[in-house]
Formats: sequence, C-alpha cells, structure tokens
Amino acid sequence: MKKRKAIILAAGEGSRMKSKKAKVLHEVLGKPMILRVLQTAQQAGLTEIAVITGHQAQQVEEALAGQDVVFFRQDQQLGTGHAVMQAEAFLEKDADILILYGDTPLMESRTIQRLLDQQEASGAAVTVVSAQVDDPTGYGRIVRDEAGKFARIVEHKDATAQQRQIQEINTGIYCFDGGALQQALGRIQNDNAQGEYYLPDALALILADGREVNVLQAEDAGEFLGINTRSQLADAQRALQRRINQRLMDEGVTILDPNSTFIGEEVQIGMDTIIRPQTHLEGKTVIGENCEIGPCCRLTDMIVGNQTQIQFTVAMESKIGDETKVGPYAYIRPNCVIGDHIKVGDFVEVKNSVIGNGTKISHLTYVGDSDVGERINFGCGTVTVNYDGKKKYRTTIEDDVFIGCNANLVAPVTLKQGSYVAAGSTITKDVPENALAVARTRQSNLEGWHKK
Amino acid sequence: MKKRKAIILAAGEGSRMKSKKAKVLHEVLGKPMILRVLQTAQQAGLTEIAVITGHQAQQVEEALAGQDVVFFRQDQQLGTGHAVMQAEAFLEKDADILILYGDTPLMESRTIQRLLDQQEASGAAVTVVSAQVDDPTGYGRIVRDEAGKFARIVEHKDATAQQRQIQEINTGIYCFDGGALQQALGRIQNDNAQGEYYLPDALALILADGREVNVLQAEDAGEFLGINTRSQLADAQRALQRRINQRLMDEGVTILDPNSTFIGEEVQIGMDTIIRPQTHLEGKTVIGENCEIGPCCRLTDMIVGNQTQIQFTVAMESKIGDETKVGPYAYIRPNCVIGDHIKVGDFVEVKNSVIGNGTKISHLTYVGDSDVGERINFGCGTVTVNYDGKKKYRTTIEDDVFIGCNANLVAPVTLKQGSYVAAGSTITKDVPENALAVARTRQSNLEGWHKK
Amino acid sequence: MKKRKAIILAAGEGSRMKSKKAKVLHEVLGKPMILRVLQTAQQAGLTEIAVITGHQAQQVEEALAGQDVVFFRQDQQLGTGHAVMQAEAFLEKDADILILYGDTPLMESRTIQRLLDQQEASGAAVTVVSAQVDDPTGYGRIVRDEAGKFARIVEHKDATAQQRQIQEINTGIYCFDGGALQQALGRIQNDNAQGEYYLPDALALILADGREVNVLQAEDAGEFLGINTRSQLADAQRALQRRINQRLMDEGVTILDPNSTFIGEEVQIGMDTIIRPQTHLEGKTVIGENCEIGPCCRLTDMIVGNQTQIQFTVAMESKIGDETKVGPYAYIRPNCVIGDHIKVGDFVEVKNSVIGNGTKISHLTYVGDSDVGERINFGCGTVTVNYDGKKKYRTTIEDDVFIGCNANLVAPVTLKQGSYVAAGSTITKDVPENALAVARTRQSNLEGWHKK
Repeated sequence: MKKRKAIILAAGEGSRMKSKKAKVLHEVLGKPMILRVLQTAQQAGLTEIAVITGHQAQQVEEALAGQDVVFFRQDQQLGTGHAVMQAEAFLEKDADILILYGDTPLMESRTIQRLLDQQEASGAAVTVVSAQVDDPTGYGRIVRDEAGKFARIVEHKDATAQQRQIQEINTGIYCFDGGALQQALGRIQNDNAQGEYYLPDALALILADGREVNVLQAEDAGEFLGINTRSQLADAQRALQRRINQRLMDEGVTILDPNSTFIGEEVQIGMDTIIRPQTHLEGKTVIGENCEIGPCCRLTDMIVGNQTQIQFTVAMESKIGDETKVGPYAYIRPNCVIGDHIKVGDFVEVKNSVIGNGTKISHLTYVGDSDVGERINFGCGTVTVNYDGKKKYRTTIEDDVFIGCNANLVAPVTLKQGSYVAAGSTITKDVPENALAVARTRQSNLEGWHKK
Repeated sequence: MKKRKAIILAAGEGSRMKSKKAKVLHEVLGKPMILRVLQTAQQAGLTEIAVITGHQAQQVEEALAGQDVVFFRQDQQLGTGHAVMQAEAFLEKDADILILYGDTPLMESRTIQRLLDQQEASGAAVTVVSAQVDDPTGYGRIVRDEAGKFARIVEHKDATAQQRQIQEINTGIYCFDGGALQQALGRIQNDNAQGEYYLPDALALILADGREVNVLQAEDAGEFLGINTRSQLADAQRALQRRINQRLMDEGVTILDPNSTFIGEEVQIGMDTIIRPQTHLEGKTVIGENCEIGPCCRLTDMIVGNQTQIQFTVAMESKIGDETKVGPYAYIRPNCVIGDHIKVGDFVEVKNSVIGNGTKISHLTYVGDSDVGERINFGCGTVTVNYDGKKKYRTTIEDDVFIGCNANLVAPVTLKQGSYVAAGSTITKDVPENALAVARTRQSNLEGWHKK
Repeated sequence: MKKRKAIILAAGEGSRMKSKKAKVLHEVLGKPMILRVLQTAQQAGLTEIAVITGHQAQQVEEALAGQDVVFFRQDQQLGTGHAVMQAEAFLEKDADILILYGDTPLMESRTIQRLLDQQEASGAAVTVVSAQVDDPTGYGRIVRDEAGKFARIVEHKDATAQQRQIQEINTGIYCFDGGALQQALGRIQNDNAQGEYYLPDALALILADGREVNVLQAEDAGEFLGINTRSQLADAQRALQRRINQRLMDEGVTILDPNSTFIGEEVQIGMDTIIRPQTHLEGKTVIGENCEIGPCCRLTDMIVGNQTQIQFTVAMESKIGDETKVGPYAYIRPNCVIGDHIKVGDFVEVKNSVIGNGTKISHLTYVGDSDVGERINFGCGTVTVNYDGKKKYRTTIEDDVFIGCNANLVAPVTLKQGSYVAAGSTITKDVPENALAVARTRQSNLEGWHKK
C-alpha cells in the first residue's frame, strides 16, 4: 500500500461566527470540530497528519495537545494553496496526500477510506471529491468533458450561465499523489482579485501536465457541510445527532424522541435500553442492557450496568451497577462506585464515595468522601461532614448500619457494622458494632406558649 | 347487527428490532403496541377478540393478563394465513371476522368501525383496507379491473413494471364474512418460495368462488404503519404524540411546544390550561382548567384541580387541589392528597400523606406517612422520621402548627393544634395544643477559637 | 413627515380557541399577542395608537394598563369596517392611519415602517399589504388590472375559478390617508349575508372616487399569520422562536438546539455564550459573554455576568456575577445579588440575599433574607431561619465565616468575621469575631443496642 498522509487546514478565522474563539474550536456534540475531523482521519487509518494553523494558532494547537500531529503555521491566510505550501516539508513524493478541513465535522471515515482507496487504485495524479447538490449557488462546479471526464473546476463567480446549471460541486476534499502535488504547488499563481493562492488551480496544472484528475462522487453532500455560521453549527449538531441516534436505534436501543436526545459518538448503549426524551449522554459513557435513562438526564463519562433506571439526574465520571434506581433529582459527582440494587433518590448528592449493594440513600442526603457498606439505610437529611474548612476526611460506614434522619457524621469517623445513629444526632466519635449512638437533647414542652 | 369478532396477529419476532423482547411488547407513549391495538378494537365495539401469539408467547400473554381475550399459539410462524388457521375454533360462520396486527399501533377505532360497517352494509365476503402511498415499494398492490372493482392483490416482487406504478396498497387489514373465511382458509397453499401460507390468497379464492371482495380506501395511510425497527417505533410515537396534542389543542388546551410535549392518550386536560415544553403527562392523569404545567414535569396517574401551577416536578398517583403551587424540583410520590392553596416548594418530597388547605412546605423538606392539617408552616429542612429500620409510622400534625427549621418529627407523634416546634429540635413525644416544644442545646461561643 | 396613527383591532372572541380568555390575551413566547402587536407598532415609531376592544373588553384593557393607548369599544362585532368606525373620533384628516390586528403577533416593525413610508411617498389614498401564498384558499385575493395596478379585492367565496388561481392575497393590513378613510367609512354598507361592515369595501369606494390604491407586496407571508386556533398559536410561537434564535446566532451566540431553546425577544446574550438545549430565557434577562447556560434552565428577568455557568436551574429577578457556577438543581428567587467566583450548588435555594465573592453554597442549603460576605463556606444542610411564624428577619454573615453542616442560623443573628459554627448547631445569638459557636449535645454510644 502506498504511504498515506493528511493535511488538515485549520487556519481560518471564521468571521461570520462572530466569535473570539477560532472557528475550528467550536464544538459539535461536545467535541471541537477540528478534533472530530482529526479523529475521523485517524479512524480512516491515517497516522501521519499535519494541521495548518493560523488564526488563534496557539489555542488550536493547545486543543490538539497530546494528539499525534505536526503543526505548520500559516500566519497570513492567503488561500488554500498557500495553506498547503506551509506544509511543504511534510509532503512526500511517494505518498498520497489527503487534504481535509477543520470546519467540516460531518465527514465520515468510510468516505475518506473510499477516497484513499480509489486514488490508489486509479493511479491518478489526484482524486477530487464531488457532490450533487440541489442548489449549487456559490460552489465551484465540476465541469466534465464530452467523455464525462474531469475537465476543470469553475468557481461560481467565473461560471457561464450554462455552467451554473451544473449541480456537481467541488467539495474541496482531494487526495493528491505527493509528487504531483509538489510539482503543481510551486506553480500556483495569485493573479486574482483577492491575491490568493487557490488549491483547485493545482488540478488545472496537473491536467495541463497530461496527468489524470479523477473524481469521486460522494453519496451524501451533507457530509461536506462547512461550518461558517452558528446556524450551520446547529445544523451540523442536529445532523450528527440524527446519525448517531439512527445507528443506536439500528443496534437495538429504543430512543423515544430522537429530536431531544443528545448522544456523543463515543457513547455505547446496550440492547433494549430505553432512552427517554431530553437526555444527554456525553463523553465515554457506557450504558448496559435493559436500562431506562431519562427523561431529563445528563450523564458524562459514566459507566452504568444493566436494568438500572435513572431519571432527572446529573451524573459524571462514576460507575453505577445493576438494578439500581437513581433520581429524580440526584447529582452524582466524580469518582463514585455505586453498586447493585441501590436507591439513590431525590435531592441526593453522592461524591467520591463507594456505595455497597442494597444500600438506600432515599432523599435529601449528602454522601461525600465515604466508604459505605451494604444494606445501609440513610435517613433523610443525613450529611457526611467531610470538610472542616481546611482538609477533607473520609467517613466509613460498615454493613447494615441504620442512620437516623438529619444526622451529621463528622469525618473522620466510622460507624461499625450494625450500628444505629439516632435521628438528629451529630456523630463525632466512632460508633461500636451494634451500638446506638445518640447526640441530642431531650424534648421539653412549654405549655400554653402559643397564646403568649 | 351481525356478530363481530377480531383476531390480532401478534406472533412475530421482529428481528429488525434487535431486541430480546417481543416486538409487540415495545411501548409507544407508555403503552405496549399490542395493548394499544387491542384497546382500539375494543373502542370500536369489539368484545370477542383472539390474539395469536408465538414468539415469546408467554410474555405477550402476560402483558395482556386481565384483558378479555382468548389466545391461540402459533408455534411456528408460517405466514399470516397460517396464523389465522390457529384460531380456527374461534371463527364463526355467521360472524364478521376482523384481522388486525399487534404491530400497527397507530390505527384508529373509527377506521375499524368504518370497515365493520362497510363490510356489513356491502354484504361482501370480505372487505380489504387499502391506502394510497407515495412510495409503494415493497407493498402488495391492489389491482382493479376495468370497472374499478377489486381484481387481485399482487405482491411487489411478483408485480409487473406497470403494476408497480399502482400506489394503492394492501394494508393487510381485512374484515371477512366468517363462513367465507372458513371456506377459504383450508384451501390456502404454501407452494411459494418461503413455504408460507399467505392470508391475501384467501381473497383470490373467495373471488374465484364468485363472491365479492370489497375495498375500503383509508383516508390516512399513516394509520397502518407497521413497526419493524426502533426508528419506526420513534416515528410512531411522534405520530401518536402529534395526534393527541392536536386533539387537546382543538379542545382548548394551550400546548406551547407540541414537539417536546408527551401526553398519553388517556390523559384529560381542562380548558385554558397551559402545558409548557418538556412535559410528560402519563397514565390516567387528569388536569383541571387554567392550570400551568411545566416546563419539565413528569406526572403519572395524577389528579390535578384548577388554577394549579406545577413546574420542574415529578409526581405520581396522587391528588393535588386548586390554586396550589408545586415545584420547582418537587417530588410527589404515590398516595398523596394535597389540598388547595398549598405550596409544595423546592427540594420537597411528599409521600403517602394528606396535606390540608393553606399549608406551606416551602423547601428542603420530607413529609412522609403524615396527616397534615391546614395552615401549617413547615420550616426548611423538616423531616418526618417515619421509619425506624423495621416499621413505618405516621405523623399527625393538626391545624395551625408551626414547625421550625431542620426539625425531626419522630413518628408515631402528634403535634396538636397551634403547637410550635423550635428550630433544630428532634421531637419524639406529642406536643400539646399551643405548646412550644424545644429539644436542642444552648449555644456556647468559644472566643478566639479561629486563631488557634 | 405626515402624522401617523394606528388602530389595532382586538375586539374578536376567537371562538375556535375554545377559551374563556379573549383571543388576543393568549401568549406567544411569554407575551400576550395584543401587547406584542402594540410594541411592534411602537417600535415602528407610532405613538398615537387606538385599540378597539369588544369581547372581554375589560380584561384586554387591563392587560394594556400603563400603555400609552386609547381604547374604543366595539360592543357588537359587526365586521372590520364597523370596528374602525368606533374609532371615528381618533381619525384625522391629515394623518396616515395604520390598521393592525391584535391576533397577528408575528408582524415585524420594519414591515410596518416600509408600509408607512411607501404610503407617504406614494401619495396614494391607501396602501394595502399583500402577500404571496402557496395555498390562498379562504383569503381575499388582490385582483390587478392589465397594467398590474390594484383593481379590487375579491373574497374567496365571491371569486371566480380564475380569480381563485391568484396567489396574491390581502393581509388585511392597510395604511389609509385619514381623509380618504373618513370619507369612505361612512359609505361602507352591510348589505351582505352576515350583515357586517367590511373594511376592504373602503378600497373599492376610494377607487371609485378616482383615488389611488397602492399595494405593498410583503416579503414573508408568515408575518401575517392570524391566530385562530391553539395549533396556530403553537405555530406562531415556533416561528417567533426561530426568528429570535436566528438573530442571536447571527450575533455570535451558540444555540446548540434551536428547537428546544425558548428565548424571549427582549433577552440579550453576549458573544460566545453557549445556550444548551431545553433552556428558557424569559423577560428582560441579560446574559454576558462566554457563559454556558443549560441544559434545562429557566431564567426570568435575570442579569448574568461573563464566564458564568448555569445548568438545571430555575432563577428569577436576580443578578449573578462573573465566573460563578450555579446548579444543577439550584433555585434562585427574586432579589438576590450573587457575586463573582461563587458556587451555588445542588439543592440550594437563595432568596432576597446578597452573596459576596468567593463564597460556596455547595448543597442542600437555604439562604434567605441574608447578607453574606466573601469567602464563606456553607456546610451542607445549613438553613437560615428567617421566619418565626409572624415576621421575617435578616441573617448577617461576615467575611471568612465557616458554617458547619445542618446548622440553623436563627435570624436576626450575626456571624462576625472569621467565626465558625459547629455542625449540627442551632445558632440563636451573635457569634463574635473568630469565635467557635457550638450548640449541640455530646454523643453517647449505647453498646449492644442493636441486638435488643
């Protein structure tokens, strides 16, 4: 197989976004556009990838920190040809060079693969991806000769009335033979109104050299939507949302209202799980089988077992086991391991804690920095007092403990197995096994008080 | 009137659902498809109904437990004709036999009624329901003779190019004269590629016998959408949601965003009530007039009076009176009777309790297993301590009681009329009329402590 | 400039709304339709405006209380001409008189301005606004003569088959020369089936007098949608929602899901703020730059600074500063001033309070009627006890105070700078600077209790 490399153009400002942030850093379904394009290229098998940065170069490069890419700066934005020229050192005579854009987040890796494969199989000097659109206004047209072969690209403003009827447009995605690109690149001129160097001119030069320009007709023009406005950003999010939801439904997930269900593309969901409306599943969330999630949940980087039900809940970076019920109105913060057959009920926060099987945290409770055993009953209003203003401490609650309502457990403290805390007690010392801990005042009734 | 009976075919697996659950048990707007079809038939006046089960027969039969139906098993699924053959004992010579499907949840009872009436009035041996569709690909076509009368049904794969132009399709819904069906059924052959017995063949046999086949043209092809994929399930839910919301709007309910409003078909709503977005009304919920419900509510089997406002709330199996305000972030669990002019505020759970008129439960409070009088003020953080780890007990709070913040009321306990509980008290004994109950420790200030 | 006056017709019942409320009082995006029409007229520069009321005249007039308008009663609704006749005293010979409708909430002020300007520039006796529609059924058609000039308006029922092909319809919006209107009004007859006086007849009379009738073709027929049903009300809300969201996106706001984002037209949002799905921004809410709002928020008349994040929160009539985090599940009630770098976390209510910079109210806390300094830590379960059953009192918390969990602060009370409240304490007396306040009972452990 011929060596394959990619160049992603990401230097543009995107002034129509009306943003202080570089266009390619705007997010679609929780991920910056440039990162999505990069990952799509990686999924298509590309490992050598250059990114051309310019506008807010530093922020764009930071957003890709840790990614296996090389950066080239295009300090002045003088056209797509000029952008590729900045990566001259990256080009190789014997490699195929793919040209992508940081602002087309809907492109799919299988399309890139088709392009790479067709370019290699054809032996052409370059393959350009075209698409059929209903309204080609503004796009460069693919003009073909009588034999149906690629003749030239004509920009909209230069097109004759007849050429403007052409509905096959240039997507701007190319795969070049490295040598052909090297030879053409040096000869692109900027003798146009904008004084810019346009990459499509490379195709004319290649054709003039007697080499072949191949065309790959894309199946779905929607993949190549370039994002120039916030409105297009919303359209792209919706398109991606539909694609992901469709895939999950095909795999056996029930999504009751795909329009109000927002699932990141790395999320995994098991068969026969039901996703109710107004649900957001983000990051690397994994949901098991036969769960019911939603309505109105936001789960980020969560691992959830099977047969678990979660409604009206915000949860992140934690694990929840099987046959557990969470919500409504629960908040699970990072680093929790919540077991099986557990109830995490309403107005309950759990943070950085382990919760054993069969435990009930029914309502109005805060469990933080705690190691909680099995079959524990948290009374309503229980608070683990984990912070003294300087440090955080852990609370340990062993199996079969019963905690009365509105109790404070002042950490560090241990409630031993089978112990019992009276309602309204503030517990500051360990409670022995099977002991009852009380820390409250006896009740006095002052009769006739109300009349005074 | 001729006797009328129905057979609902519900034996199929629905492999494209990618599910461990039988297809007809998947829910649309909170109700299994098969149950919806059954109820639609019942609403059309049918009382003798047979259900043909096969795939996961036991689970399907359990889902219909308590329904007045008879079951016939189709252990091997050998076609629609074969399915009906299983119910041979159910057929009657002098009855009209309606054939329905467990996976077409959008069919309306008035359409069934039209079919039954037309079949009876026509005296035909069978009436088949046809529908006009834009894209008939895959469907059996209704071929008519020169006089416009039914000639035959041609399956898509057997159709000529000309027949494929026909846009009138067979919905698969039939009403047979019982005797005609009995005679035809025994003669259906399985000499086809699949080796199956097809019910449409009965029509050819009937016609060959010189009897009339009548066609009822349905007004809306959408009613006959058969659900084969999760994507179609979502489409069906949306179609049903639109139909229900449209009916409610016609009746005088304001639904601000029908797209995000999910209302079960048995829900009733009074005139001039406003339903805000992201609201789910489920089960047999009844809402009065001039209410405002939502945004972001989920009410299941609730009875709500007039002029009541509920927002960001989950509530079930309870009653709420007039001019009461609930939420945001309230959770009302089963078996509550909440009166008029009440406030159930934020982060409040009420469970299995009666709440008298004019009472305020403003925030961060749990009222469970309680009988609460009128004009009571619950301080913030109040907890009715209803569970001692073994049993649940009731709390009684008489009229005009004032409960201080963060108080525990340890049941069984009674706060007599006009009594007052000091903030921070844990109440374990009854409080007499007009008495002040205190159960807390006096405050000590340790000066200069913070510097240490 | 010629003097300009407007008459808004708002006397109709709107029986198809099935409502006890006058049609024009139904709300679109939080504002009664009649108010929106009035404000649109005012934005177009009109200051002298008459409103014709009839059905529920009193309620309609009350809804506009405080607005600079004069009312005329149309006690019997005898047609649009009759409605204008009621305002005879308002007409002026030398003014241009604009005719608007209280049930067309989508009309834009720039369209009104174009109409006024064109009427004045043309010198015509009247300018009528027409629109092109796909399906003109039911509408009056604009019939033009051979020269393309206005010939007459033909109502749908009176139209010939040929006239029914005309897709240019009468929107019912006119701008009359006052004198011409005065002269025509007296001559409109009610010799029709309904016995009503129709305003379009004025155009025929004017033309017959040899004066010119001008036509303004509107760009978007959608602006003139008249609301007659709840379904059209939902359509109007959606159309307005789209228009507002589109404007905000054009201005540099990211709206991830415009379909589930409901923003009032007076709301202002800064550049690069992200609005997540299921968010409602109401009233005169102002959001700064670089904020993240949503999912699932309802903010009414809020002022929010820059870089602030709010999710799953209901908030109203308060200010929130910069780089503050609110929610999930926070409730901010009126009259709060919440500063910068603050955390208002889960299950927290804040009401009528000032919160200083850097303070943390993390969870399960109520802060009401309080003056809270900077860098304060509220323990989980803290309650400001602001109400004794008769009066409300304020709590004062000075800088750098630490409040232990489940503490009650019984107002009026002051926690002086640097003081510390032990968990589980009910504080009834002021706490001196740097002092530790304790008000709880020492813990006793009863060993072996559980076995009993």
